[in-house]
Amino acid sequence: MIKNRLEVTEKIIATKVSKGLTWEKVAKEVGLSKEWVTAACLGQMTLNDEQANKVGGLFNLNENEIKWLKVVPYKGSLPTAVPSDPLIYRLYEVISVYGLTIKELIHEEFGDGIMSAIDFSMDIQRENNPAGDRVNILLSGKFLPYKTF
Amino acid sequence: MIKNRLEVTEKIIATKVSKGLTWEKVAKEVGLSKEWVTAACLGQMTLNDEQANKVGGLFNLNENEIKWLKVVPYKGSLPTAVPSDPLIYRLYEVISVYGLTIKELIHEEFGDGIMSAIDFSMDIQRENNPAGDRVNILLSGKFLPYKTF
Amino acid sequence: MIKNRLEVTEKIIATKVSKGLTWEKVAKEVGLSKEWVTAACLGQMTLNDEQANKVGGLFNLNENEIKWLKVVPYKGSLPTAVPSDPLIYRLYEVISVYGLTIKELIHEEFGDGIMSAIDFSMDIQRENNPAGDRVNILLSGKFLPYKTF
Amino acid sequence: MIKNRLEVTEKIIATKVSKGLTWEKVAKEVGLSKEWVTAACLGQMTLNDEQANKVGGLFNLNENEIKWLKVVPYKGSLPTAVPSDPLIYRLYEVISVYGLTIKELIHEEFGDGIMSAIDFSMDIQRENNPAGDRVNILLSGKFLPYKTF
Amino acid sequence: MIKNRLEVTEKIIATKVSKGLTWEKVAKEVGLSKEWVTAACLGQMTLNDEQANKVGGLFNLNENEIKWLKVVPYKGSLPTAVPSDPLIYRLYEVISVYGLTIKELIHEEFGDGIMSAIDFSMDIQRENNPAGDRVNILLSGKFLPYKTF
Amino acid sequence: MIKNRLEVTEKIIATKVSKGLTWEKVAKEVGLSKEWVTAACLGQMTLNDEQANKVGGLFNLNENEIKWLKVVPYKGSLPTAVPSDPLIYRLYEVISVYGLTIKELIHEEFGDGIMSAIDFSMDIQRENNPAGDRVNILLSGKFLPYKTF
Amino acid sequence: MIKNRLEVTEKIIATKVSKGLTWEKVAKEVGLSKEWVTAACLGQMTLNDEQANKVGGLFNLNENEIKWLKVVPYKGSLPTAVPSDPLIYRLYEVISVYGLTIKELIHEEFGDGIMSAIDFSMDIQRENNPAGDRVNILLSGKFLPYKTF
Amino acid sequence: MIKNRLEVTEKIIATKVSKGLTWEKVAKEVGLSKEWVTAACLGQMTLNDEQANKVGGLFNLNENEIKWLKVVPYKGSLPTAVPSDPLIYRLYEVISVYGLTIKELIHEEFGDGIMSAIDFSMDIQRENNPAGDRVNILLSGKFLPYKTF
Amino acid sequence: MIKNRLEVTEKIIATKVSKGLTWEKVAKEVGLSKEWVTAACLGQMTLNDEQANKVGGLFNLNENEIKWLKVVPYKGSLPTAVPSDPLIYRLYEVISVYGLTIKELIHEEFGDGIMSAIDFSMDIQRENNPAGDRVNILLSGKFLPYKTF
Amino acid sequence: MIKNRLEVTEKIIATKVSKGLTWEKVAKEVGLSKEWVTAACLGQMTLNDEQANKVGGLFNLNENEIKWLKVVPYKGSLPTAVPSDPLIYRLYEVISVYGLTIKELIHEEFGDGIMSAIDFSMDIQRENNPAGDRVNILLSGKFLPYKTF
Repeated sequence: MIKNRLEVTEKIIATKVSKGLTWEKVAKEVGLSKEWVTAACLGQMTLNDEQANKVGGLFNLNENEIKWLKVVPYKGSLPTAVPSDPLIYRLYEVISVYGLTIKELIHEEFGDGIMSAIDFSMDIQRENNPAGDRVNILLSGKFLPYKTF
Repeated sequence: MIKNRLEVTEKIIATKVSKGLTWEKVAKEVGLSKEWVTAACLGQMTLNDEQANKVGGLFNLNENEIKWLKVVPYKGSLPTAVPSDPLIYRLYEVISVYGLTIKELIHEEFGDGIMSAIDFSMDIQRENNPAGDRVNILLSGKFLPYKTF
Repeated sequence: MIKNRLEVTEKIIATKVSKGLTWEKVAKEVGLSKEWVTAACLGQMTLNDEQANKVGGLFNLNENEIKWLKVVPYKGSLPTAVPSDPLIYRLYEVISVYGLTIKELIHEEFGDGIMSAIDFSMDIQRENNPAGDRVNILLSGKFLPYKTF
Repeated sequence: MIKNRLEVTEKIIATKVSKGLTWEKVAKEVGLSKEWVTAACLGQMTLNDEQANKVGGLFNLNENEIKWLKVVPYKGSLPTAVPSDPLIYRLYEVISVYGLTIKELIHEEFGDGIMSAIDFSMDIQRENNPAGDRVNILLSGKFLPYKTF
Repeated sequence: MIKNRLEVTEKIIATKVSKGLTWEKVAKEVGLSKEWVTAACLGQMTLNDEQANKVGGLFNLNENEIKWLKVVPYKGSLPTAVPSDPLIYRLYEVISVYGLTIKELIHEEFGDGIMSAIDFSMDIQRENNPAGDRVNILLSGKFLPYKTF
Repeated sequence: MIKNRLEVTEKIIATKVSKGLTWEKVAKEVGLSKEWVTAACLGQMTLNDEQANKVGGLFNLNENEIKWLKVVPYKGSLPTAVPSDPLIYRLYEVISVYGLTIKELIHEEFGDGIMSAIDFSMDIQRENNPAGDRVNILLSGKFLPYKTF
Repeated sequence: MIKNRLEVTEKIIATKVSKGLTWEKVAKEVGLSKEWVTAACLGQMTLNDEQANKVGGLFNLNENEIKWLKVVPYKGSLPTAVPSDPLIYRLYEVISVYGLTIKELIHEEFGDGIMSAIDFSMDIQRENNPAGDRVNILLSGKFLPYKTF
Repeated sequence: MIKNRLEVTEKIIATKVSKGLTWEKVAKEVGLSKEWVTAACLGQMTLNDEQANKVGGLFNLNENEIKWLKVVPYKGSLPTAVPSDPLIYRLYEVISVYGLTIKELIHEEFGDGIMSAIDFSMDIQRENNPAGDRVNILLSGKFLPYKTF
Repeated sequence: MIKNRLEVTEKIIATKVSKGLTWEKVAKEVGLSKEWVTAACLGQMTLNDEQANKVGGLFNLNENEIKWLKVVPYKGSLPTAVPSDPLIYRLYEVISVYGLTIKELIHEEFGDGIMSAIDFSMDIQRENNPAGDRVNILLSGKFLPYKTF
Repeated sequence: MIKNRLEVTEKIIATKVSKGLTWEKVAKEVGLSKEWVTAACLGQMTLNDEQANKVGGLFNLNENEIKWLKVVPYKGSLPTAVPSDPLIYRLYEVISVYGLTIKELIHEEFGDGIMSAIDFSMDIQRENNPAGDRVNILLSGKFLPYKTF
């Protein structure tokens, strides 16, 4: 018996390697953005029945494994507080170097509050550029103001 | 005698409060994006002579303090590895929840490599939205491929 | 010159001791809940002009110190990740022991998402009880659902 | 042979997924609050004979597994000191931002002491709200005063 | 102006050195156990008016410093999670080596619950012993049972 | 083949659950205090031939497992530096809050040195008390003075 | 089914021991530097089809295992932030002792920016020396300047 | 009175900024490599009388400050175990990603032992390159073999 | 197939327990000091062919396991940075309490440099003493001076 | 007024630099080993009246500072759990690499127990050696056996 979501995630990743699937193709099947679908397959988001069945079909999951895709997971995908992987570290470095800057500018524009990480979407695009193609990541989150009470 | 860049940064921030300056106005004076200028004033970037003089003028810095703005700083603006401030934590959470997703999708598009945090720019915009205005942060970095050697 | 909000917070706390003020009285003056006003005086929330002036008057703050009360602070009030103070540790223990329980029950009722800590309020009450009076803390936060994108 | 309570907890969670049980139904069977029963099933509380048998029946536990439910567990349900899961992190953030505030206000009302996390109960309710439903968590703990000795 | 309790604690310790006071004498003046009085002077407990005045007199505290003795302190007296001082480390080692043993035996006797660290007293005695005198530390805390709710 | 003492400890604990043994009964069989015997069974102390055989008989250990009981273990029974279990945390809190106090009072009585955690014994007793029964833990260790050399 | 790249890495290392291969020979087969090929075999770099097949042949990998060599790995090869192995620690010590020196001298020569760890190569050579042979490690990385934006 | 080497280092750095000195010029005056001299000025190495006097002259140090330059310092120049500064982090990343590779290749060439970080030198050079100039760092350390004893 | 040196180490330790071997006897067979041989058997040192065969014979290792004894291990034998085992902690405490003292005295005698931990030997002896036998540990390492470059 | 022992230690170290004292000379004046006297001057041991007066005379301490030398200090002289200074790190590495070995051999000789770090002495000697002089550190501690109770 599958004991937790992690085992399903590992099976999805292993099946992706052996079958040679791409996240783009998976997203197209599910009918949502590649960003959200990948996060869901990596065990960070919860799928509804239809989504879970499609993902299950693509990754050869059995009925019980598909059920796990519909359970809200314990989120957080990094093995260490400061990530060791260079690609992910660069994102961490952006927060380290520019974090206070982002904070200052959002507060200057909106006042006290935060950019939501829940009412949130993300879009990753390649920008063709003669000086070397660029990765563009658009983070979009609803501004949530603190309120007096 | 000023002992380090941090003291200059603290003076800039304190002067900003007492004079009521905005980063937008500072950026306009310097003639660069508000994101870069704010990061520089917060002690994360190095200014050239002209930029340093303008910043010095706005924040009442003396000659010696202005010199420090031209020295490459020890970067990293956060007091703890996992940031406690809610606004900055949300950015950290985005990496925690979506970090592997971003990694997967960049590799699927570009192969092995990273998004540079040096050949990098950032743009923060308000998006008017009837369901609540949104913060849009565009991170743009050159893709740097690993090469065999 | 005041260098940061922390110095203002320390002055507020020291003045409270020397003048013998209570948070309840401060809250009454400001006209908001004791929970929010205390958090603001402790450097976690941002005050508007009127609130800042009232707080400034009560704690003998000068004009420049009052300005700092209107600047969004770097939040987070604990010196260590696991708090050493017994009263605050008990709250941490509640999360440690019951955190997964709270997660399970909120998801069972609402689906995937979180209880907001921004669109949030808190109410602390004494409950008279013959077996020993109780502290009742009501945490109330808007449910924010994850959305597909 | 079952080696520890954790294995029983994992079996309970896996069975819940495969059988599609809800904590509400489990709580109703056991005849106690959903908060306490869920905590117990998640390996944080100790059940008596009757409770253990009911839980065992619902989750298909064998006799030896049921015995483990009656053993006092090593408590603490979080894998890291600062929780990575967004829902649980928000609770941690509340302590980080409002912890000193709660401390100040309880001491102002009760003097030196703590809110017990043992003589304690918790109640989680949905509040219907046109601006978005809210999660209300009531924490109730006996005040325990420090005594001179 | 005194900024926090720590400064008062430091003055107490420094005065104790320069005046050559003993904790035993201080305790006798205050009229409580040496354990509780020492903890209070070290900034871990809260004194009432009479106790604060006596302590203030012994340590040459001014009126404002005496007020701080009556404020509930942020408790926890160790600079690191694992204490480096050999005497204090031995206590930590006792918990490390015998902690689970103590847990097992208290639960075997009392069921699920804890020994209170609030409704608590401590008594330190010298035991004369021909094989070398011993330190006897008696920790006494009320048993607090977990209750279903 | 058994690989380490931990596996034997786990078998002892699991057998205790399935057979319903108590530490008190085990201690009586071995003929030593319940505190020492429990610590030994939990993998913190080393047993001699006779003790190991008795423990082995009670917990159905085979000859090889019994040999492990006679090997000096790697001691330390806690999974984290700051223990998450509430009962054990209270002991840690006692050190955090009263550690410097204990240090001051032992030094005042004995001079520079420590209370041994090796030439040490521990006694846990229930104290009947109308206000609620108490747990009394007596820690007794030989005082070891630092010597000049 | 292979669950992750780590399992393939472990098989490569175990096969290297049992077959007595050298990294030099493996590198010669693959036709690239010993530094890059070793890093790839240790699960830090991504191989193309031809490289993966050659490595697969040398280490008796099956078709599925070979596929994993072509998947971008989660990088970072050290089990702790500060490495315990003496050889690797010496490299860490070089950064600890000389890190600021390297930073100062690169900035003095190039201005603000970094030495890339992606557009990077490494060459390890033995230097024969009568006073004892030396290890020479040449790190070569493209300088990447920060740019205003 | 100067209390420690750190204060001298801070004075050196501040004087360098205000006088506009370069490490290259300082090294030329002292007559040693820029790498070693910079490390010494940054408080990591010990100077002899002649070197200390030259450095003292360049940085306006008084007699007592010059004495500190001749005292062996407590080494280690980084404020955190994992460095936050991007330039220094890249060096850390090289160890993280290639550390085991370096270990494997040195052992394959030399057997068990280490590259010394004491009998060590470092040379930093700019390599002109049409694809972008490169930073070349040559680390050279004597190989020290483990010996049986 | 054996996956790593750790598995061989665990087999050696388990076999030592089941066969009742002593390190002294193992050392005599190998013909080197008990300190070096024990370290090697515990997976910290590398054996040559003859040593590995002797160790393999004593501990019933097969041909493949013997090969692992000849592979340079990833060194470092402690599960936590601050060791929990009381015997090993005392060594750590010696460094904590006397570390700066040792540093001062070696520098006073030798100048700047270190005591090698590679060109190193260790000798552990019992000293009979009427006041209680003593453990004498002699650490002997070549002094390695820092050199200018 | 001196606030703590640390300030006295800093004054001793600064005076040693400015007056050019050696620990050897200080030890001769005090009439004890250089190891113990240095540790005491560095704030790790407690001096008696006569020793404190001699140390006070050598380092120009006033009466109040001399009093601090007679107060038992909070021990532990390292700023981080894993020391960054190379000389001290080598000692830590010895524990990391050989710690389990030392444990095994002491237990094989003495049974379960520890080498005391309190009933302890240390002797540091230069050994002239044609292959390079060596540092010999003899650690000598009374063996303390665990006893059943």
